[in-house]
Order: sequence, then C-alpha cells, then structure tokens
Amino acid sequence: MAPAATELGLTLRVLVESADAAAALPAHETVVGQPSDADAVARLLAEPRPMALTWEHEHIPESLFEAAAAVGVPARPGLDALVFAQDKIAMRGRMESIGLPNPDWARVEDAASVTAFLDAHGGQAVLKTARGGYDGKGVRVIADAADAADWIARRAAGGPDLLVEQKVAFTRELAVLVARRPSGDVAVWPVVESIQRDGVCSEVIAPAPALDAALEMRAREIGAQVATELGVVGVLAVEMFEAHGELVINELAMRPHNSGHWTMDGSVTSQFEQHLRAVADLPLGDTSPRSAWTVMANVLGGARQELPSALADIVDPGAKIHLYGKAVRPGRKVGHVNVSGTHRQQVYDRAVAAAAIVREGVQQ
Amino acid sequence: MAPAATELGLTLRVLVESADAAAALPAHETVVGQPSDADAVARLLAEPRPMALTWEHEHIPESLFEAAAAVGVPARPGLDALVFAQDKIAMRGRMESIGLPNPDWARVEDAASVTAFLDAHGGQAVLKTARGGYDGKGVRVIADAADAADWIARRAAGGPDLLVEQKVAFTRELAVLVARRPSGDVAVWPVVESIQRDGVCSEVIAPAPALDAALEMRAREIGAQVATELGVVGVLAVEMFEAHGELVINELAMRPHNSGHWTMDGSVTSQFEQHLRAVADLPLGDTSPRSAWTVMANVLGGARQELPSALADIVDPGAKIHLYGKAVRPGRKVGHVNVSGTHRQQVYDRAVAAAAIVREGVQQ
Repeated sequence: MAPAATELGLTLRVLVESADAAAALPAHETVVGQPSDADAVARLLAEPRPMALTWEHEHIPESLFEAAAAVGVPARPGLDALVFAQDKIAMRGRMESIGLPNPDWARVEDAASVTAFLDAHGGQAVLKTARGGYDGKGVRVIADAADAADWIARRAAGGPDLLVEQKVAFTRELAVLVARRPSGDVAVWPVVESIQRDGVCSEVIAPAPALDAALEMRAREIGAQVATELGVVGVLAVEMFEAHGELVINELAMRPHNSGHWTMDGSVTSQFEQHLRAVADLPLGDTSPRSAWTVMANVLGGARQELPSALADIVDPGAKIHLYGKAVRPGRKVGHVNVSGTHRQQVYDRAVAAAAIVREGVQQ
Repeated sequence: MAPAATELGLTLRVLVESADAAAALPAHETVVGQPSDADAVARLLAEPRPMALTWEHEHIPESLFEAAAAVGVPARPGLDALVFAQDKIAMRGRMESIGLPNPDWARVEDAASVTAFLDAHGGQAVLKTARGGYDGKGVRVIADAADAADWIARRAAGGPDLLVEQKVAFTRELAVLVARRPSGDVAVWPVVESIQRDGVCSEVIAPAPALDAALEMRAREIGAQVATELGVVGVLAVEMFEAHGELVINELAMRPHNSGHWTMDGSVTSQFEQHLRAVADLPLGDTSPRSAWTVMANVLGGARQELPSALADIVDPGAKIHLYGKAVRPGRKVGHVNVSGTHRQQVYDRAVAAAAIVREGVQQ
C-alpha cells in the first residue's frame, strides 16, 4: 500500500510487529508493537491524528477499534463489517439473511451434529474453524465425525468455533473485487478466475475466461451487494465457486486481496490505490482493465532465498515483478508476477514461468 | 523512485538535505546531509555497501564520485557521462564530435564574441550558462551584446562559463527517453512531444502526434547513440527541436526526467523502474505504451497549498495523480497527472483539467 500512498501524497503510519518486519521498510512512519499492545496503539493514534485506520489482515482485536473510537479516528472497515470477514459463522448467517448464495452449512456443536450433516450430504463435508484460518489453514475435508474429533475437543477447551459446509462440486473458483467509500459509491473490477493448488491461490486470470455474461453480472451484483449491505469501507474480495451454472459464496476478505494483485499492472486503478481512496473517502478510480488479459502468478517460498537476485534471471521484458520483502519460508507467499497481453495462454505461460524463476532460480 | 524500488525488493538509501525533505518520507533509509559533506557521504556509502550510487539531478560534486570510487561503489551514470548533462559546453562539443545535430553555437569569452555571433545569426540568439541551469533558469534570449553584459561580468568574477546558441525556429519540441545498462543493452520509449510555457514543461503527449516515421526513427537513433557513445547508465532524456523536418538536440538529462513521467501509467515499464533496472544492471523492461495516447500534465505550484486535498475534488476516475510531497511555491513542479485513452484531444483536456484542479482548487 505504501507505493500507492506515496503517489497520492498520503502518509502511511504503519503498526509493525518488529522494526525489521517487511512492512517497515516502505512505510512512511512506523510504530513497533502488537495490535493488542495499548501503548503501541496509543503511539499509532497519536497526534497528528490519522484521518483513518485500516487493515491489511482481518485478525484485529476489538480493543484496537475501541482505542480508535475513543480518539475519533474512524476504523475503515469498521468492526461491524470486519466481523463478517473474521468469523465464518457470522458470515454464513449474514449471507443467508440477505439472500445471497451459501453452500449448505451448519454450526458444529458435537460429533452428532457432524454425523447428521455428513449423512445429509453424501458422506463428505468441509470442516472449518470460524476464526483464524487462511490459505488452507483452518479448513479440512472430512468423511466421518472422527475426522473432526480433535477440533471439537479443542473447541470444548476454549478453541475456535466450528462450522461444517457442503463440499461444493465446483467447476472453478471465481472472485469479484469491489471497493466502497463511506459515502456509498461502489466500484467493481472485472470478475476473475483463481486457480488454487493445495488450498493456496497459485494464479489469477483476469478476466475469468469464457464466463457467461449473466454469471459475470450476477457475480458483480453479489460483490456490490455484500459491500453495501455490510457497510464495508475499502476493498472487499468475494471468493465464489462456479457450480452447475450457479455461484456460491466461499469466503470474504475486507482488504486488498491476492485475487486483486493483477490490478497493480492490469487495471487503470490498482486495488491498493483504490483501498486508500475508499478509506480516505475520495472519488474511486476507474476499474477498467488495461489489457485484454492479465495473469497474476504467486511466488511461494522455494529454493531461492534472496529474491531480488531473481531480477537478473528474468529476461521477459513484460514480466512485472512484485516482491514483498518477507523472509522466504516454504510455501509462504513472498511475491507475485503480473503479465498482460492479448493472447491468454501466452500470458499465462509467461507469468507462471517468471514466478517459477523467482521461486526456484534458473534450472541449469 | 522509491515505489518502484519497493516492488522490486531493492532498498533505496537516500541522501536528503534535511530530515523533512520530500524524498525522506518514501525513502527506505535516509542519510541527512549535503553531497559535498564528507561525513554524510561516508554514511551514505557505509556497510552494507550500496550495489550502486545514482542521481535524481545532475548537480553532483566530483568529490562524491571520488568517495564512491574509493570504496568500490559504482556511480551510475559515472562522471565521464554525467559531465555532458552538467556542462552545456562539454555537451555541444561532444555532440559535434560524434556527428549529432547541434544548433550553431559558440563559447562566450567577451562582448565581441557575442556581437559576432549575433551578426552571423540575424541579430538574435540564446545565451546559456554552461552549468547550473534548469527549467528556464540560466537561459536568456538576447538581441545585443549588452543583454549579456551582466553574465559576462559574473563569469569574469568566477561565475559559470557561457555559451551562445542559434535561436532555432522550431515547429515543436520532442523528447526521446532511453535507458542503458552497463552491459550495453539499450531500451527506447516512443518519442513524445513536450509543450513548454514560460520555459517550463507544462504537458507531454505520448506518442508525439503525427510524427513523420523517419523522424521518429531518427529521434530513437539519436537517443540510443547518445546513450551508447557517452556510456550512460540509467535513464537518459534527449530533448530536441523539430525544425524544417529536421531534429536539433536541445538538452540532455541523465536521470528519470519530466518528459518521461507519462511512462508511470502509460508504458509497461515506468522510467523509475527502468532506471533502477539499468543502474542495478538487470534486464531492461518493455517500453511499449499501454494505451493509444497518454498525456502528462505538470502541476506547478499555485493557489492550493495542501495538494492531497485535491484528491477529493478530482472526479475523473482515470486521472492518475502523482504528488511529490514538496512544499508548494509559485511555479515549482509539485506533481503531475497522467491520463490515457484512445482519443487524443479528450485525453489532453482531461489531464490539463485535473492538473488545474490540483493546482488551483475547484473554481466556484
């Protein structure tokens, strides 16, 4: 978000876990501490007071919202919206109440409730923790109540609440990215397809290839409706399954999201600029694509430890490299590559090839 | 340059005049001091040693090059190239020796040399200081030796050397932007037209409208030839006059340049990313335009003091705003706006309108 803030002349004061955190280097001002640390939060909110407070992940304690409210700094999105990205049970209930398409789902209280759900859904289901999951963590496919026993026991001991969901037989995964400012304006980017490997997003294709026009419109409507009904401020990603010509909501994220990284090079307005515009209640930017196709390929931690050295090995002049400055760990998202062009398969292959070089180095 | 460095995972350690200088906020690391201050320079070059040293203006003392050489940090561009952007007499002599198109010109030693030049060129000429000029400063149109008397006296007292140039009856001003890496690769962007008001660039149109294809090719050749012959590393801008179907070199800049700000939104690779790639000796990026037309409109200091407040007033969703965080002074370049699209006049009008709002606020 820092590069976008620099161009807009906005100052970003960032709460970082440690002085050498990845976010500290590009930040304009840094405060070191945990979001649960009242002293660090006081420094974050000190004069000159921020015009607003926003997030790059959803794991934000209520105390931080209270501290901001106490000094009149608006939290965007606020907890009344963010709770639906923090808590999957709250989210499922809310989607249901506003008539948006959920898979079948149920709270998990005990083994019996799991067995009943499995019996009603062909013997397979997806068990999830209501809070704290990401990138495949906190999600497990189950076929028997015994597969849920450890999480149920953990819940009984004070661990996270659980829900079980129908395992949707989907054709593919789609995502729609929207932004909403406090005054109510909503901007929607083209619907994208996201490709997952081992529960983690590996590529995003923008726009989603061969998407039925009615489904594209329906996906956009869902995105705008979630943003408006929940009173989201900032960028919202709605991840969906396409199944039997229908859409089913999978997850919500209320922040710039992996499914929107393609916008950094592929759209007139990047999700990071748009998030800042929305949070600062400024006119939203144009969400049009700049090219027929843009493909984003994630760089997951692999053999190469010093990622900037990859720049020397990537000779594709149109590969736009984005590195996060994070320590490399196996499978951790540490960067991504965007490629744009007119021929989809070529664009896809180029993005994947460049990301592989960043990750693994050049194979001799 | 900082946003581009952030995305590439490169760390930018910046020498700034004061802790509140505009460059300090987005910089990754800062050293406060003057380029002539040996102690500040030692801190700039301290361990971990920078992979290279580069510039955002040409007014660099020789001592800084010497300090870098002493610790093995390459200066890019080096003084042997940069001198031709620092010193207009050196530049004219070098262009002449490599056969590139100069206007008629002469060194100014005294009033008699001015009179002789005026007599030979229809009674009008352009007097320039060899060093230190920018944005119309250090440049004066003269019609009589008396118009040069004060600068000649200043030179005699140790002031800058002077030269006089033919006043070229040009149709318009063009610029070509190129980048060169130490290994020799050169990348050239499309030739642009720059529009000046009161000696200061006000707009740039990319590409230059209705440019003869042979002239476009000739301008690209000139750019590549200057970069190669002078051994430039980094971004080079060659400003030219189009006159009677010919090109005449006006000025050189060896750094990301105002005539290249359109690339930030209008080209696959921005001049700032490219400059970093060149300076770090990395493969150069694609210089293709992203749109049929991009217009850059400079924001010069005007009525509005707090520029980020302009963001609220600009409702054109495709106006890409770039603010520099500099204190507003009348006529100072404090930001620019890029607009891209398919209809040139509309794109031009939108860019100019948005820049006027940033500068002046909304006229009621």
